[in-house]
Amino acid sequence: MNITDIDPASSALLTDLYQLTMLQAYFDRGMHDIAVFEFFARKLPRNRNFLVAAGLEQAIDYLEGLRFTEAELDWVARHGAFKPDFVDYLAGLKFSGDVHAMPEGTVFFPDEPILRVVAPLPEAQLAESRLINLLNFQSMIASKAVRCVLAAPGKLLVDFGMRRAHGAEAGLLAARASYIAGFDGTATVLAGARFDIPLFGTMAHSFIQAHDDEAQAFEHFARSLPQNVVLLIDTYDTEAAAEKVAVLARRLLHEGIVVHGVRIDSGDLGEHARKVRKILDDNDLRKVTIFASSSVDERKIQALLQDACPLDGFGVGTHMDTSSDAPYLDCAYKLQEYAGRARRKRSEGKATWPGRKQVYRQLDAQGRMRGDILTLEQDVQEGVPLLGPVMRGGRRVGTAPSLASVRARLRQEMGQLGDALRSLDQAPAYPVTVSPALRGLAEEVDQKMA
Amino acid sequence: MNITDIDPASSALLTDLYQLTMLQAYFDRGMHDIAVFEFFARKLPRNRNFLVAAGLEQAIDYLEGLRFTEAELDWVARHGAFKPDFVDYLAGLKFSGDVHAMPEGTVFFPDEPILRVVAPLPEAQLAESRLINLLNFQSMIASKAVRCVLAAPGKLLVDFGMRRAHGAEAGLLAARASYIAGFDGTATVLAGARFDIPLFGTMAHSFIQAHDDEAQAFEHFARSLPQNVVLLIDTYDTEAAAEKVAVLARRLLHEGIVVHGVRIDSGDLGEHARKVRKILDDNDLRKVTIFASSSVDERKIQALLQDACPLDGFGVGTHMDTSSDAPYLDCAYKLQEYAGRARRKRSEGKATWPGRKQVYRQLDAQGRMRGDILTLEQDVQEGVPLLGPVMRGGRRVGTAPSLASVRARLRQEMGQLGDALRSLDQAPAYPVTVSPALRGLAEEVDQKMA
Repeated sequence: MNITDIDPASSALLTDLYQLTMLQAYFDRGMHDIAVFEFFARKLPRNRNFLVAAGLEQAIDYLEGLRFTEAELDWVARHGAFKPDFVDYLAGLKFSGDVHAMPEGTVFFPDEPILRVVAPLPEAQLAESRLINLLNFQSMIASKAVRCVLAAPGKLLVDFGMRRAHGAEAGLLAARASYIAGFDGTATVLAGARFDIPLFGTMAHSFIQAHDDEAQAFEHFARSLPQNVVLLIDTYDTEAAAEKVAVLARRLLHEGIVVHGVRIDSGDLGEHARKVRKILDDNDLRKVTIFASSSVDERKIQALLQDACPLDGFGVGTHMDTSSDAPYLDCAYKLQEYAGRARRKRSEGKATWPGRKQVYRQLDAQGRMRGDILTLEQDVQEGVPLLGPVMRGGRRVGTAPSLASVRARLRQEMGQLGDALRSLDQAPAYPVTVSPALRGLAEEVDQKMA
Repeated sequence: MNITDIDPASSALLTDLYQLTMLQAYFDRGMHDIAVFEFFARKLPRNRNFLVAAGLEQAIDYLEGLRFTEAELDWVARHGAFKPDFVDYLAGLKFSGDVHAMPEGTVFFPDEPILRVVAPLPEAQLAESRLINLLNFQSMIASKAVRCVLAAPGKLLVDFGMRRAHGAEAGLLAARASYIAGFDGTATVLAGARFDIPLFGTMAHSFIQAHDDEAQAFEHFARSLPQNVVLLIDTYDTEAAAEKVAVLARRLLHEGIVVHGVRIDSGDLGEHARKVRKILDDNDLRKVTIFASSSVDERKIQALLQDACPLDGFGVGTHMDTSSDAPYLDCAYKLQEYAGRARRKRSEGKATWPGRKQVYRQLDAQGRMRGDILTLEQDVQEGVPLLGPVMRGGRRVGTAPSLASVRARLRQEMGQLGDALRSLDQAPAYPVTVSPALRGLAEEVDQKMA
């Protein structure tokens, strides 16, 4: 296989060059002892009261499949910086470590690791770039999408964003992450095919434009795809099109074809929705739903619904698939222990908590989340530990949970969040307490380094 | 091949469901006449005075390879909405059309098409989602990255962003788009291997942390990779580390190993750079360069350089790879003509200019860009036409230009931009005039629709 044909999603070369140069140096010095790396967010983005863990399944797949192909080894050998015996070593490299993680769909907060890798140093090091790439993206999207879900209880929410997602994989995985967050489905066909996510979609403006007559376009579509008739009505004049839909819907009903809904994609969505609702109701079409798209995000959805607009669902695209108000998480994957000794980075503003950590979550009497304790793995605290084993000796532990069960977990966690945290507005910070045991270890490490 | 093994980058199913439902309806009605679609931006994002066209090569590759595999056809057949004869038709579908485009590396402005597809309606329709996905992303990244280039003349600029790019393809293509924009290279190995982009990178904090002694970590690295010694000095105490580097560099020099540079990744980059420069200079290490990373973007780079900080280069990561201040373009791919008749969408705030269009660029006597004219293809105007043929009958015209030539084109265009447009601050809008011929056609189309 040529290097240009390699799927980047699983390529060992989808990493930063410094991982390979460090591996060369580790190889030269025989530094193969066990390292512990953890992935966590340093702080919350603006406009987020919590984050949602997602991307773990792809991270596990990546680690299970991590090895260098012939074409990749050839490239490394030809690059110039690397020695032949090191290339031979890479040929046999695979991930043999253990991984603990929070299940996908778990709510998490700054400094809390959602993934811990325990593996020989080179293996854990090499995986850094792609693990961050996977966990940052899906966690970011799930954290954005769940805000739409909180803003639109009982409404149909569909991911419309693949076209402005950042590339092919972003489009696919945004569909997955938003489905985890509680979206009803996606428009992205390959995401439906690959992840078994419900698919939605009917027509674009070009379909209307390609016909000489809008009403005829509606009828052609309804006759070709009678199971799912949702008609796009804003190509020329939204209310005029709604009148055409009304005439058509009543006529087709006699033939057993049901018009399910209309979609509005421009203008003042609330105002159009009211006028269109009235036109439909006046024609006794109360069951025909109104679906809105056009640059909506959680705030626009909330504003429309607080204004009691008669909208039944939303296509959320660009703003969700790019997490446009927070298009990255301030997250990191850091070495916390090597060769049995805790390690700590002390860079200004980027210091880390050393050692293997666990997070305990405590609920109050009403079952609401009261606070988390960040502590060392062996320091048992009250509450529920959030990280559990997901890989052992380089292999997945158990089977992957279904997306349905991941959705259910997050839905349950949403019920445990306090009202302030569930709000779209900024809430007081959720209490995450660093345990005395962990503080003690950090001081100890600092003293040794001083 | 199983559906889960398909590379999404080339999958015919990486599209929106509505493309397939529309194709079913087109098939049922025999609507296979020639359609003209154009891709353009509706307006500039905040903080952008112009955009840079990029992503065309991947768009052409996609169109050339567009067909349904057995696994994809099986999926379509099983979905339920599609008829068996339509699935048979999809089995034979491929892209047979013509494409005109602005070359990659061309500066463009709102309403100017950078790509025009002329093909039987179903072929041009099916490709919409992925074409937008490809052109939006790379154009957005090139438009962001070129601002870094404008802010840092003569400095080394390296893409560090794969880990926070949105997925695998975004990381790869951000490296490509930023290289087009004038970056010197990337840290992303697969981008180097696939696109022949120069690679940069040496060590992470974990390398330092895995050693018990920072000075020893530096020495181990320098001895393992003596061709490219850039040492990361902010893990514990930046200036203390610079002193260690100075001692080491002088010692290694006797053995013929040259320390090329140091990297600072936290704290006040300008203040550290000054102190570190002094330490290096005092040790007669004037050629050792200082490279900065840590959340830099074009504004931070400009501020540091205007403050005359002794920085020789920058690793630009998250902010560029996500285009964090503008993580999407307001862009579209719209039907402008079908079956020989011009078409026009009139949705509020989203109306389009009909017909097959060309853009003419006019330079003033000093060779600076004076203004563009947006007109119909056959309406020849003064100036240089920006769109040219890139595909004919479904095949690429000529060979793909090298990335070096694309970089050179953009460098030349940067020289033609007025100073206000080259500024990071908002400039008066560049004049794009709609020709009388195009205005006339728009009115004609409106009258026919009225």
